[in-house]
This record gives sequence, structure tokens and C-alpha cells, in this order.
Amino acid sequence: MAKLIDGDRISEEIKDEIRKEVERLKEEEGVVPGLATILVGENPASKVYVNRKHKACEEVGFKSEQIKMDESVTTDDILLEIERLNTRKDIHGILVQLPLPKHIDRRKVLEAISPDKDVDGFHPINMGKLLANNEALVPATPAGIVEMLKREDISLKGKDVTIVGHSEIVGKPCALLMLNEWATPTICHIETKDLKVHTLKADILIVAAGVPYLIKEDMVKEGAVVIDVGINRITKDQANEELLEWRKEDFEKKGATLIGDVDFLRVEPKASYITPVPGGVGPMTIAMLLSNTLKAAKNIMRREASKVKECYGELKDMTKDEMIENLDKMVGELFDKINVLQSEIDGLRRDIEEKEKTIKALKSSVKSLDDKFERV
Amino acid sequence: MAKLIDGDRISEEIKDEIRKEVERLKEEEGVVPGLATILVGENPASKVYVNRKHKACEEVGFKSEQIKMDESVTTDDILLEIERLNTRKDIHGILVQLPLPKHIDRRKVLEAISPDKDVDGFHPINMGKLLANNEALVPATPAGIVEMLKREDISLKGKDVTIVGHSEIVGKPCALLMLNEWATPTICHIETKDLKVHTLKADILIVAAGVPYLIKEDMVKEGAVVIDVGINRITKDQANEELLEWRKEDFEKKGATLIGDVDFLRVEPKASYITPVPGGVGPMTIAMLLSNTLKAAKNIMRREASKVKECYGELKDMTKDEMIENLDKMVGELFDKINVLQSEIDGLRRDIEEKEKTIKALKSSVKSLDDKFERV
Repeated sequence: MAKLIDGDRISEEIKDEIRKEVERLKEEEGVVPGLATILVGENPASKVYVNRKHKACEEVGFKSEQIKMDESVTTDDILLEIERLNTRKDIHGILVQLPLPKHIDRRKVLEAISPDKDVDGFHPINMGKLLANNEALVPATPAGIVEMLKREDISLKGKDVTIVGHSEIVGKPCALLMLNEWATPTICHIETKDLKVHTLKADILIVAAGVPYLIKEDMVKEGAVVIDVGINRITKDQANEELLEWRKEDFEKKGATLIGDVDFLRVEPKASYITPVPGGVGPMTIAMLLSNTLKAAKNIMRREASKVKECYGELKDMTKDEMIENLDKMVGELFDKINVLQSEIDGLRRDIEEKEKTIKALKSSVKSLDDKFERV
Repeated sequence: MAKLIDGDRISEEIKDEIRKEVERLKEEEGVVPGLATILVGENPASKVYVNRKHKACEEVGFKSEQIKMDESVTTDDILLEIERLNTRKDIHGILVQLPLPKHIDRRKVLEAISPDKDVDGFHPINMGKLLANNEALVPATPAGIVEMLKREDISLKGKDVTIVGHSEIVGKPCALLMLNEWATPTICHIETKDLKVHTLKADILIVAAGVPYLIKEDMVKEGAVVIDVGINRITKDQANEELLEWRKEDFEKKGATLIGDVDFLRVEPKASYITPVPGGVGPMTIAMLLSNTLKAAKNIMRREASKVKECYGELKDMTKDEMIENLDKMVGELFDKINVLQSEIDGLRRDIEEKEKTIKALKSSVKSLDDKFERV
């Protein structure tokens, strides 16, 4: 019998920690982390995911904003929107919900997001920093996997880790994170000649292939840790007898159920730890997105102060070419600074209003006490 | 008996191809690719490597420039030099010879190189693009490994590839290149619990650990392809009998020899292909550096035309003096605005302080009235 790794519980823990930190930030620095999402088109699954992310923002006290764009928009329309969000002071994280419609240049869109606000960690510069084991915004799903292993006290150092799936979003960054934790990763995919050879030797098996029942019990080593990233929707008419029985309630209520890439009922008895689907990696992904947004907000805050000073210093001794190149940047940064000061002023004004209310209330207390006293 | 993969011959082939392309570029576009190297300090090995790179540039008709800096320079000195090279139109590739002295911030230096001129491929943005399988400048050593395998018609698709060594320069980018070629990579390192398990299953074994004799014959599968990236200098008094005999000439001439990480004499009979040291991966690295510089020059050339158009726009008719005047005025105004806002903030803060005093006073009035009232 494996121990279930409860992603719901762990992600709640993380959200609690974030909530406390947000309160502190609000109080001490007057900053509320803000996440903006861009959703293009009407993909129902994407809508569900985006809504879930906004609900989570609300739970931890983030500001969040949803930008919905029509299916028919162009790449340039999206780039313009991202450019706006990049310069906004109240937005610290920008997320473009994937998949994008086919006519959109996905790469261009993802690379347009300021790396500082790239809370999905998909910008090449964040990926490159992850590779170099530098401070970076790390894609939420692999970050969530490492986080859940750490919180279960499952050590990674020296472990053989087999990753099934070599996507940019899960498999590859996951392998890099594993190296940063001193594990020995093997990355498998559809062209791997004998998947079983690699899964069988894994101390930790991470499956992100999107293929239900891909991992059977004879492919897993006794005592392995099994992390199932797959989320496959199975409708009633696709389900076998066993699944119909196991997820009876789901099928009755919703006509479908969600399963992972691992044949859970058969693999679970062999594993030492296993993540369920749903309630395993899924909720961790959202928790790590929040964690990235908080991190981004703090990084941006820290950098702001020193920025203006630096940019004026560079002005001297420039050639015309350099000036043209730098003009926009420098002036933009000064404008940004002005916006920051303006919002600080707004904050202070609100504070004064509050204090005036307090004074008014206290004065009326004094007055009523005076009256009362006179009457006595 | 393994087939030797002759890096010297393959790299000459590549240099021939580059030479022809350089002639064409010179003739048709009037552009000569230019490489600048920065060498800090007096490390003798580094000097040898840098000189070799310049010699290779000469061979293919590149312009090249060596910048020597004293051991005592600061990180900022190097950054300044890089900044100059970034803007120079005749330099398309910039390479900072590693290792740098300990007091230098290596990361800062490598990230300062314009990604377009980063012919070593060490900038995070190039690493990230490699991860995403986008067009990028790829580190020369792993690029050389893939190139030599391709030119020997050794297919990678579906192959199990074990990489020993997880450096940012060889191991990690090599694993990503292998994934891009649909191989199944495993990345091992000093914490891998049983190296032999992983090397034994490799169809292609790539060793970049810097440990002489690390790979013995019992660690290699019959018929494997063995790529030895190690370059270890063994002096006469470090050598065993066998090596003294095998490299007799080297020891007589130079008192030392170069060997890889693989026990060549014993592993070679089991392998199907193997790279010698020297004359294997080493010369490929330089060939790929040249190839990267050529690629960078072509990319920069292509982009330049459109960039100038975009950038100049309305500014094109201004003189530098006019621009400075304009800019100064604009920046001055922005700074004035910032000062005004700052003093407004100070005023508001004073106001808040006053109000806080009032609140304190009123609270104590309320308290004393309460007390008085109670006593009555």
C-alpha cells in the first residue's frame, strides 16, 4: 500500500503561507501582488483553468485581472496587450493561457512577456536560468512536483528519476530541476525504444505523457515513488467496467471522470508513494503559480528603487545609435517611477482619509462622553 | 575494433565549408565575420586555447581580435569592454575565455554578452531557446558532438544516450540537444548512485567528467558509441607503464600527454565507434565556435537592415546635438516631476504624522474621560 501524496492538502498549506506573506507585504510595503491572465477564444477547458487560477488569487489576497480576447485576434493584438501589462505597476505576473489558436505565433507571444513577470516560467531566459541553476521563475508543474516531494521528505539526491514526456512545460524543466537537486534524470518520450527498461529502474517515476493507462504495474519497481502528471477525461462510454465501478459517483454526476497516465489501482500496491488524479499534481500547479507571482512581486519591488539612478548615469558619452536605442528605455523608466510615486501618493491619501475618519469617530466619542459626564 | 571518429578530419571539412561561405559573404555582402575574445589573467592553458581559436579564425578568413586584460581587473572593467564589443558593427561573436579569476562575477559577465553575439551559447536566453528547440547559438562542445555523430551517419533517434557530467557547458545542453534529436538521455554526475548501471545500457556514451580512466571496459556495452570529452594532462611521473609506452613520443618531446576520461586501450575493442583524445571532440569544439560566429554574423546582418529602418523613423533628421538637447530637456522635466511628487509625498507623510498625534491625544482624552466617568 502506497502512501497517497495529498496535493490538495499540501497546496492549501502553501496557500496559507502565501496569504500570510501577502498580508505582511500589504501592511509593511503597501504592495498587493497582481496577476493578469490572457485568455484567447472559447476553449471550455481553458476557461475552467483560468477561472480556477483567479479563484486561487482571491483566496490568498492577490489582485487579479482576466483579459478575454476574441478567437479572431491577431498575434499583434496579443503583443500589444502584453506590452501594456508589462509596464503596469500593479501587475506582477502575466500568464497567457495555452493552447492559443493556431493562427497565433505562440513563441512570439511567450517571449513578449517580461521575464520578470513570466510567472509560467516559459520565457527562454527563465528556462536558461533554470538550466544554469540561477534564480529564476520556474514552470509551475515541475516546481510543484519538487515541492511536494520535499514536503513529504522524499530526498532526491542520488536518486534515479525517470521522466516520461519531454515537453517544454513539464518534462525538460523537470529534468533540470532534478539535476539541481542532484538526482540522475532520464527523459523518455514517444521515440524511446523500450520505455519499460527506463521506468523499471526509477526510484522516482514522473509521468507526463497524456496517455491513460500508459504505466502498468510491471513497469514500476517495488517501492518506487510515482508522480502522475496526466489528466485524462474519460467519458462513461470510454470507461471499462472497473473504472465505471471505481468512479461510479463521477459518472453518475458528470458522465465522466479524470484519470492520470498511471494504472492507479494496479500500480498503487507496488509504490511507496503515489499521487492521485485528481488531487495530486493538479492543485500543486496552481499553488506554485501563486508562489511565482508572489516571488515576481517581491523581485520587482526590490529592483525598482535602484533602477532610476542607474539609468541616468548611462546617459553620458553615448553615440547617436546608442542613444536611439536607449531613449525609449530611459524615458520609460522615469515614467514608471512617476507612476510608482503617484500610486504611493494615492495610498498615502487613502491613509489620511482613514485617519480622518478615526479622528472624527474619536471626537464624537469625546463629545458623547462629555455630554454623559455633564448629565451625571 | 572500433572505428575511430576523426575529429581532426571532420573539423577540417567544416572549416572548408565555412571558408567558402566567408568568401561568398565577403564578395556578395561586403561582410567579414569578426570574433573578439577576452582573456583575463595569465592562465597558460587558457592562453593556448585562445590562441588556437584565433588561428582557426585566420584559417577561415574571419577577422579576429584578442583583448587581454590583467588579472587585477574588476567585473565592471570586463562589463565595459563587453558593452563596447556589443555595439561594434565589425564584431559578430564575443567569447570570454573561462575560467575567470575568482573575484570576477562570472554570471554577470556571461549575461552581459549580447545574446546575438554569444557564440559560446552560454547566455541564459540561448540556453532557454535550446530547451525550447528554437533557433539558438548552441554551446560548441555539445554542438560538435552532435555534428560529428551526424557526419558519421550515427542516428540518434530512439537511442539510449548516457551523459556523464552535468555541467552547464557540456552535460546539460548536450542532453537537450539529444532530446531535440529524439534520443533518450540520462544525465549522470558525482552523486549518481551507480554509474555503471547507466553507462552499461547506453547505445551512445558521452563522457565529460574530467576524470582520467573513469570509464572502464566493464562499464560499456558491446557495440556502443563512445564519445570522450575529457582532456586530462598526464605528466611523466603520473603515468603508468602502459601509458608511458603508448605515448612514448609525447613524453619524450613534452614530458606529458593528453588523455580523456575513457580507458581507451581497453574500451576501444568493445565499442563500435570511439573518439580519440586528442583529435576527437577537441577540434570539433573550435570548428563549431567558428560555425556559431558565422551564424551570428549572418543573423545580425539579416536583422540590421530592418532594424535601422524601424529605429530611426522620426529621429533620423536630428543631429546628435539636437538629440542630446531634446533628451536632456525631456529627462530634466521628468526629474522635476519626480521631485515635485517626492515633496508631495513628504508633505503627506508629515500630515499623517500630525493626524497620528491628534489620534493619540484624542484616545487619551477618551481614556481619561472614561476613567473619570467610572470614578463618578
